[in-house]
Amino acid sequence: MIAAAERRPGRTASGADPTERDRSAAALERLSELLAKDMQSVNRIIVDRMQSPVGLIPQLAGYIVAAGGKRLRPLLTLAAAELCGYSGERHHKLAASVEFIHTATLLHDDVVDESERRRGQSSANSLFGNQASVLVGDFLFSRSFELMVEDGSLDVLRILSRASAVIAEGEVLQLATTNNLNTSEADYLAVVAAKTAALFAAACEIGAIVAERPASDADALNRFGLNFGIAFQIADDVLDYSAREALLGKTIGDDFREGKMTLPAVYAISRGNEVEAAFWRRTLEDMEQQEGDLDHAISLIERHGGFTAALDLARRHGELAIEALMLLPPSQMRGALASLVEFCIEREF
Amino acid sequence: MIAAAERRPGRTASGADPTERDRSAAALERLSELLAKDMQSVNRIIVDRMQSPVGLIPQLAGYIVAAGGKRLRPLLTLAAAELCGYSGERHHKLAASVEFIHTATLLHDDVVDESERRRGQSSANSLFGNQASVLVGDFLFSRSFELMVEDGSLDVLRILSRASAVIAEGEVLQLATTNNLNTSEADYLAVVAAKTAALFAAACEIGAIVAERPASDADALNRFGLNFGIAFQIADDVLDYSAREALLGKTIGDDFREGKMTLPAVYAISRGNEVEAAFWRRTLEDMEQQEGDLDHAISLIERHGGFTAALDLARRHGELAIEALMLLPPSQMRGALASLVEFCIEREF
Repeated sequence: MIAAAERRPGRTASGADPTERDRSAAALERLSELLAKDMQSVNRIIVDRMQSPVGLIPQLAGYIVAAGGKRLRPLLTLAAAELCGYSGERHHKLAASVEFIHTATLLHDDVVDESERRRGQSSANSLFGNQASVLVGDFLFSRSFELMVEDGSLDVLRILSRASAVIAEGEVLQLATTNNLNTSEADYLAVVAAKTAALFAAACEIGAIVAERPASDADALNRFGLNFGIAFQIADDVLDYSAREALLGKTIGDDFREGKMTLPAVYAISRGNEVEAAFWRRTLEDMEQQEGDLDHAISLIERHGGFTAALDLARRHGELAIEALMLLPPSQMRGALASLVEFCIEREF
Repeated sequence: MIAAAERRPGRTASGADPTERDRSAAALERLSELLAKDMQSVNRIIVDRMQSPVGLIPQLAGYIVAAGGKRLRPLLTLAAAELCGYSGERHHKLAASVEFIHTATLLHDDVVDESERRRGQSSANSLFGNQASVLVGDFLFSRSFELMVEDGSLDVLRILSRASAVIAEGEVLQLATTNNLNTSEADYLAVVAAKTAALFAAACEIGAIVAERPASDADALNRFGLNFGIAFQIADDVLDYSAREALLGKTIGDDFREGKMTLPAVYAISRGNEVEAAFWRRTLEDMEQQEGDLDHAISLIERHGGFTAALDLARRHGELAIEALMLLPPSQMRGALASLVEFCIEREF
């Protein structure tokens, strides 16, 4: 039991040490700098290929792509290719393709369910409506495949079409775990591996494909991406309960309000008593939430060490990621990727 | 002006002549019979590839695939391949792939907009919710590309990924014309060419690709599919105002109730007087509809020859389709396809 010492990232431990925050943010910046020129090409392709004579498409796509933020997944493709010694330009289109798949899933994630229409909405959806979000997502998804076809590698097409199917399976599985208090750690990990980590894995693996490296390198990069993706999503789900709102740039508690069963809550529920079970039933199963419930949920998660346990699991997957990464030759890029994994777990925003 | 003599299919002319109905329905049956064995393989692939460990996926996909009906698009791929003298089995997977794209777009079409949530819903959506419909559509779309990748033709992948992007553009364009009384015949045709005819064209064209025929055959089949698709959609839109409800197996007037600007209404609006303009503004633009409005809309369309004019345009595209088809060598299959075009325009259900 670590109840009293429970660490909530962003509010306590690392928040008390500004240098740690700077150090972790710097990891992403370093990677971005190493790949700045390539990323410029990727951004040009992204902007170029979201154009359409149908005005609403670039308008909505531009909105979501601009809001897309870190461009983590295309960075992974670029980094993996460079790590494999690739020096051509094919990876630019493929990195854009990966970003389009990600953007399409973001748009489709935001679609509001019939049964949920009174709850909080994400912005693209609330601005443009369900139908436009779905259709522009479809457009970007199709564009993504057009880019891959232009590149012409059937291996890349196989990897990314498979990843897309797995992402959809993961999203549907997440629907099934929503409001379900019986969701286990294994259920949660199955969702995360599919909905998030599959694209991280594919984004990395195709770097080895364009570089025409042996299967062992492609496998190592796939494992790197998969474990990084799992670690990343766990950290993200911890942040949804614990981030400093100003740093995250959005309200916390979205998952709680939507009845999503993320790891901190899964741990707290499995370790709680009968009274607590009634609280979780009311708030996450019956979705009857009131003022103060989020704070109470956070205190229950802290009481049962839910944040610590989740971040521990994230770190274990981070270690597996770095272990796989170390199968590739040492370089500045490899160091930057390893730091990035650490950054994503310890980050506060 | 043909006001009094205006022909409403299903209620007047062909309804008075049962043999005509039998003759046109027989065209689809004949094509289905000619391709029965191939279609069995396609159906097996469809059922096999909609499976997933995530139970909701085969459940929802099975529901929509079973309800999918005529399997017109995969039939086109099979017929086009056979017309080109192909005798292998590659076209089975590709026909299934085409049907998956179609099914995915059906699921995504049915997503209810935030702003429209009080209006009529289609069934998959109302049973399973917006989110599941979107995600299972994404799954089928991804599966479709996996099937193409297994086949391994980059030409097929290029044609179908392009068609998918065009379909999405057409759907978004349709959103922009909805409730817009300024929608012209040209606007309507742009929507129809993209959202419907692009997949017909691609489904036919890939038949020439698997048969490794010269580009001129692929072009002819593309033009056949494109014009057939336009004719088919116009006829469908006429039926939405005029079909016998029992034959169609669904209520008529869906497009009217949703404020969709289809060709019969486009013609009636452009030919109407000021009083009629006020009616269309209230019903299709402001969406303030009341009892009897659909009947009044139908009578206005009849008064201005909207059904006749729409079916005339459908027939002209049907003729263009058959003209392109005649560039291919004569055969039983070619005859069946030509009859199918006629059937689709004159059909009552």
